[in-house]
Amino acid sequence: MSDARQWFALPSPFRMKRGGELVGARLAYETWGAPSATRDNALLVLTGLSPSAHAASNAQDPSPGWWEEMIGPGKYIDTNRWFVICVNTLGSCKGSTGPADVNPATGEAYRLDFPELTLEDAANAAFELVRSLGIARLDCLLGNSMGGMTALAYLAQHPGSARRHISISTAPQAQPFAIAIRSLQREAIRLDPNWNQGRYDDEHYPEAGMSIARKLGVITYRSAMEWVGRFARIRLQADQRDDDPFGFEFQVESYLAGHARRFVRGFDPNSYLYLSRASDWFDLAEHAAAPGPGSVESVLKRLDVERALVIGVETDILFPLSQQEQIADGLRAGGTEVEFVALDSPQGHDAFLVDIARFGAAIAGFLDR
Amino acid sequence: MSDARQWFALPSPFRMKRGGELVGARLAYETWGAPSATRDNALLVLTGLSPSAHAASNAQDPSPGWWEEMIGPGKYIDTNRWFVICVNTLGSCKGSTGPADVNPATGEAYRLDFPELTLEDAANAAFELVRSLGIARLDCLLGNSMGGMTALAYLAQHPGSARRHISISTAPQAQPFAIAIRSLQREAIRLDPNWNQGRYDDEHYPEAGMSIARKLGVITYRSAMEWVGRFARIRLQADQRDDDPFGFEFQVESYLAGHARRFVRGFDPNSYLYLSRASDWFDLAEHAAAPGPGSVESVLKRLDVERALVIGVETDILFPLSQQEQIADGLRAGGTEVEFVALDSPQGHDAFLVDIARFGAAIAGFLDR
Repeated sequence: MSDARQWFALPSPFRMKRGGELVGARLAYETWGAPSATRDNALLVLTGLSPSAHAASNAQDPSPGWWEEMIGPGKYIDTNRWFVICVNTLGSCKGSTGPADVNPATGEAYRLDFPELTLEDAANAAFELVRSLGIARLDCLLGNSMGGMTALAYLAQHPGSARRHISISTAPQAQPFAIAIRSLQREAIRLDPNWNQGRYDDEHYPEAGMSIARKLGVITYRSAMEWVGRFARIRLQADQRDDDPFGFEFQVESYLAGHARRFVRGFDPNSYLYLSRASDWFDLAEHAAAPGPGSVESVLKRLDVERALVIGVETDILFPLSQQEQIADGLRAGGTEVEFVALDSPQGHDAFLVDIARFGAAIAGFLDR
Repeated sequence: MSDARQWFALPSPFRMKRGGELVGARLAYETWGAPSATRDNALLVLTGLSPSAHAASNAQDPSPGWWEEMIGPGKYIDTNRWFVICVNTLGSCKGSTGPADVNPATGEAYRLDFPELTLEDAANAAFELVRSLGIARLDCLLGNSMGGMTALAYLAQHPGSARRHISISTAPQAQPFAIAIRSLQREAIRLDPNWNQGRYDDEHYPEAGMSIARKLGVITYRSAMEWVGRFARIRLQADQRDDDPFGFEFQVESYLAGHARRFVRGFDPNSYLYLSRASDWFDLAEHAAAPGPGSVESVLKRLDVERALVIGVETDILFPLSQQEQIADGLRAGGTEVEFVALDSPQGHDAFLVDIARFGAAIAGFLDR
């Protein structure tokens, strides 16, 4: 199987925000385009919870990436011009060190012995990667969804480390509705007897819990409005149904089942728990300079970004537009020149993966200026 | 324990819309106030999925009901004036016959042998009750949430049977977002090994599945906006937490846990499945007079209601305002004089249970006119 991943050995031990450390850990990442002589054309992409570093096809791996239409030669993020880096989040399971990897101290998989993970740790790991590539300052740091929170953690810990910032459908701190959803996803996994305190294997795998978690994710990533147009009340054909009295009957149910089926065995359940909890923990206000309880605003003010593009979607119920406005306003108060774009895409939180024409136009326009 | 329930023996056999019949079935109901000499002052309340018939306290049962502040002498629905009836939905588990009751044909609980239940059946059962009370025509038929759908089914099957109608936070047909949520709630129960195809008992009870279902319910019954103000990122005290690495940490999580705890053993899981599926099945368009696929609008036009009050809430994600508008417009097209009230209550779908001042004012004003 072709693989475009490159590997970066993190400084060892790599110390974590809440205590604990990783020995011999690494990041998986991919790149597109080439660095300029002065390495001033780098654009780092930080991802949502589940994507790999394979954001787009490249020579080493021609399979389509998760942002295939966005990144490439002549595309919205034009790799003839930008040196694009996408990193698999620390703690994930797509090449970067996570709970499914071997703990060198024991020779066994970490599982729940993986240290407590925060988005600040994920950001610091990405920062070390960028430094190792000889890039003094990113031209642009782009993050969407969980990756947008990671990007804010990156800038809060390393102010001035990016000239520009693109923030997409994210949050400066986790709000209770999103916490409630994620907590319930984690609970579904933890209640699955096969989860077994993280000690599952391929034969005893928390399939049911992961399926519920993923379906709940998909429900909150899209919007009711989109589904009225897309699924209405269309029923499954008789031959697509089983005879379970409470089995699936509507197309929307089999759509969710398809999403779950593709995800359940493709993502490590313990990784999911760690990254989900890290999202709940995220609160930019913790980076306030003064002792005592700080505010999100006070931190946004000091990220030292020249220009920013903040994009949100009106139908996003998980990362509501009000949170994007908060980010835009906070950056502006710190002197950043901010473009704020509110899109009425019907696809909710996932719009950045689907409504490429509108997101792409906003991003390309911003990068061009 | 005091009990204000009265019992109505349904005509036997009671035939169901999708086939099957119930023998010796009954409804539990409660009443407040007194019928006028001509019995022209009756107001029937049809409930959401889980409430009992105990909408308010009365002499026989002084415990507060689920709409305590709304119904009573001198209250918004003034029982000095109206003869109020609230019925426990057919198929529920609060006195009316449902899957937990004994099937006279076998002497065992119905469980999954209960016939397929629709909201049309629930409506017809309530209609029979009203007739048995000597009420030729309701002065007002009020339904909220699932009860609003049941009310539409009532009017579609018995046009002209209510002079006035109050429709609250409901739907003329289930939309895919609501179907997706309910399907996932049912799946959580069905995946719980203790559900055991409906054959659970007190020792082996689908506690985990019911807990997930209820929490997901509560998440979708409220709104993100309300929770920002109510819970923000407030954490639990150390002594409220357990030492599970993924245990609850935020107040919003323990709020959900409290809701689940109060519900899980108080509602029959099979009843939940039947009523949830009935909600997904509901589509007023099926009552179109012409053969072939009808429209919701064509049915709303012929319900023969003189006046209607339609109330929706802007923050309701489960029964969105657009569906309340659809009901209001459809009734108006049939000659009904319609008051449409869009409230900006922050409490989402549950607002009718919480924002009593605003709902009460709208309802009392409508009843007065």
